[in-house]
Amino acid sequence: MSASDDLPSPVPSLFPSRATRERVDDLLTRELANANERIARGSVMPRLDMAKFRQELAGFDFETPQAVEPLLAWSIAQLELGAVHMTHPRYFGLFNPAPGAPSQWADRIAGAFNPQLASSGSSPAPVEIEAHVIRAIAGRAGFPAEAGGHFTTSGSEANYTSLICALTRAEPRFGADGVRAFPGPVALYTSRDCHPAWSKIAHQAGVGRCALRLVATDGNGRMDSRALSEAVTRDRRQGVVPVLIAATAGTTGGGMIDPLASCAAIARSHGVWYHVDAAWGGAALASDRLRGELDGIELADSFTIDAHKWFATTMGCGMFVARHTAVLNEAFRVATDFMPTNASSLDPYLNTVQWSRRFLGLRLFVSLAAAGWKGYGAHVERAVEVIAQVKNRLLARGWSAMNDSSLAVLCVVPPAELGEIRDIVRNLLSSGRAWVARTNFEGREVIRICATHGETTLADVDELVNALHAAGLPQ
Amino acid sequence: MSASDDLPSPVPSLFPSRATRERVDDLLTRELANANERIARGSVMPRLDMAKFRQELAGFDFETPQAVEPLLAWSIAQLELGAVHMTHPRYFGLFNPAPGAPSQWADRIAGAFNPQLASSGSSPAPVEIEAHVIRAIAGRAGFPAEAGGHFTTSGSEANYTSLICALTRAEPRFGADGVRAFPGPVALYTSRDCHPAWSKIAHQAGVGRCALRLVATDGNGRMDSRALSEAVTRDRRQGVVPVLIAATAGTTGGGMIDPLASCAAIARSHGVWYHVDAAWGGAALASDRLRGELDGIELADSFTIDAHKWFATTMGCGMFVARHTAVLNEAFRVATDFMPTNASSLDPYLNTVQWSRRFLGLRLFVSLAAAGWKGYGAHVERAVEVIAQVKNRLLARGWSAMNDSSLAVLCVVPPAELGEIRDIVRNLLSSGRAWVARTNFEGREVIRICATHGETTLADVDELVNALHAAGLPQ
Repeated sequence: MSASDDLPSPVPSLFPSRATRERVDDLLTRELANANERIARGSVMPRLDMAKFRQELAGFDFETPQAVEPLLAWSIAQLELGAVHMTHPRYFGLFNPAPGAPSQWADRIAGAFNPQLASSGSSPAPVEIEAHVIRAIAGRAGFPAEAGGHFTTSGSEANYTSLICALTRAEPRFGADGVRAFPGPVALYTSRDCHPAWSKIAHQAGVGRCALRLVATDGNGRMDSRALSEAVTRDRRQGVVPVLIAATAGTTGGGMIDPLASCAAIARSHGVWYHVDAAWGGAALASDRLRGELDGIELADSFTIDAHKWFATTMGCGMFVARHTAVLNEAFRVATDFMPTNASSLDPYLNTVQWSRRFLGLRLFVSLAAAGWKGYGAHVERAVEVIAQVKNRLLARGWSAMNDSSLAVLCVVPPAELGEIRDIVRNLLSSGRAWVARTNFEGREVIRICATHGETTLADVDELVNALHAAGLPQ
Repeated sequence: MSASDDLPSPVPSLFPSRATRERVDDLLTRELANANERIARGSVMPRLDMAKFRQELAGFDFETPQAVEPLLAWSIAQLELGAVHMTHPRYFGLFNPAPGAPSQWADRIAGAFNPQLASSGSSPAPVEIEAHVIRAIAGRAGFPAEAGGHFTTSGSEANYTSLICALTRAEPRFGADGVRAFPGPVALYTSRDCHPAWSKIAHQAGVGRCALRLVATDGNGRMDSRALSEAVTRDRRQGVVPVLIAATAGTTGGGMIDPLASCAAIARSHGVWYHVDAAWGGAALASDRLRGELDGIELADSFTIDAHKWFATTMGCGMFVARHTAVLNEAFRVATDFMPTNASSLDPYLNTVQWSRRFLGLRLFVSLAAAGWKGYGAHVERAVEVIAQVKNRLLARGWSAMNDSSLAVLCVVPPAELGEIRDIVRNLLSSGRAWVARTNFEGREVIRICATHGETTLADVDELVNALHAAGLPQ
């Protein structure tokens, strides 16, 4: 270690001059807008020559520093050619949005300041901005004023948080002694159409995948509340400890909403934590016309909404909202010497699974402030209307709808004269004209179509319908 | 649901014209650069009038849409006034970096395309770029070619992942039956100077906080390997199942590195998973001069490095790197109908705690490609030199160093003629001239100083030393 009175220069490739930063940022502004326009006109599917790509990628051995402008241009080109495009207006896909501009701007601000969102001591204003947005969402869902919560990186993290809260409330010794503190095995309940991440969550929380009860659906993709009630009662009789019921508001497969109020009543009668996974469907709260579809969410102990789904922010910007926040502080408390000392009940590091965290909430704050509930309501209603138009056209051409979602997911099967679903989807994706998923709904193979892009036009709808139909004809 | 053949317009506040997007992006380029320059000249501490801020924040009821340019200006102003500045050259703080420009540029690209990093089917190029960076980091640490891993949002998530891997490998029935599958209580071992997130992790994984053994340190902030060996042996004798030893390479308090090779030998002799939390210190691998300090990391089953610490990317950009990847697929496997079907062993949703995820790895890819190992080596060595200069000056003024870190953390106590540490830190932070932490090192209260900013100058070092000394004089 030298004691000489000088320091080496900062590394210019990491900390360039203001002039360089502005030049590259200006370049990105132009090139990203160009790429966005090309994407909308081109294939929704990847067209990358993977062999060539892998060869080029292998060349990055990080020995020789690369000039940043060609490096960024190469990165943009690989993304333009090497990914399914969430920003394509005919991506009728898996709840992944074309991100709105305000969230991208907010993200630039968050990145430039890079505040540490672990504590209110480090980031008093950011922590309060996040709390303000969470309270607004909680209020919109009919939660009481003392409700709280936090931003997460994903719905999986938020759903996992609900299980930790449920376990911590159910058994006072869980925090100290873990799952072994319970007098018997524990169980959590969700429908068989729930998000499959729940099985990972059960594994990760130490309760085991066998603790997850996948309750039957009612023939229309919604949790059968009588089957739920029977499952909980049966488990209790056998010495199992029910800890959590998780309803889904907007299933991935069919966009269906479980009977939220009935599930709440069952949870209350058994004294278990009631969580609603509204990761996608929760955005319908913004619409005065659609929010009634979520009636019953106000009875939950907690719920999840991912702003990076139907609120169209960049990934990942999830939320965990809880009626009672004391259990969060019990579940995630820590004692530490080095953190800023003015701890508040809001401090994320004391109330969440995370520690260091990006300022995620600014994206939804800026987006909500720019659009208002009204703007987001229009955004959500427009997607529902897009799917109505797709449905009308497909039904008119002999297709059949298998689900009956009030939201923006349509599950269809083709008329008999067209080919197999597997072939139709493969042919469609090969054409690059649109992206849809193949999945199962109520035991039947279906084509799943979801409106995710806020700028999809009727011409895009027509193109989807024509492309789907064409994909079913002999190729 | 209307069947009329039209669609409402896209919501312009969320999806503005190209001209608007470019105008606002250009504004941000200028305003963020201006803010960055003002921050470096101003106070490192928040100066926000919180009462006024709360009043303004309460005004955002999301009823009336706001014009986006004043909204972004307001947001920038609150960040400029309302957070401890990680981007201030005299933030000598908690491993939170001033982010390098390449990571901010990469983040803009990732946000604009918003690829879904759950699967290689959705994002073939991004998933391979992340895997390439992970392999490069693994190789730099001396891991074999078959090593793998993934990006995480934080070191906490990565450390938690190591515990899930350890439990899954230790007991084949853990995944199905949870912690109860073990024949007795389990235990994990780290030092008493480990990151406090480990206690939350033990809670969240269902093993309970009592399963965490905080092993004594050696008087210099490093895990005492004899005490570790004794603790494991004692537990086994009592029917406890040791599952994980987690050494720290760069403790938060003192920047110390546990005896990595000795810990590895103990883990191997007991057949438990060996993890190294190198969340901060791992960046020293980039330096040919310093990488030897991490000798022994190549013996680990897994390790963690946060690129958003010493690699100076934006938050959160952590990494989990594993010698054997099969256990990841066992721990995080899922079956699902709707995901793209060309699943590969790389698919993040099948190998990580997350599901939907941002393209985090592009930040480190672009930064590493731009700077090379050599640039990052210079960045890390420069921070060590900054701390050497701080130390020289403080020792010359009668301060005493309490730790002996080979990295960039200094723990000091003032000479007797100055005031109490508590008062010195409070006075220093009130002055806004620099940010340091008060913590404990080996049972003694200390002032902790860490070089985190890649552009800190000797003038900043002088200012810190003068400000610290002044803060100890009668105010």
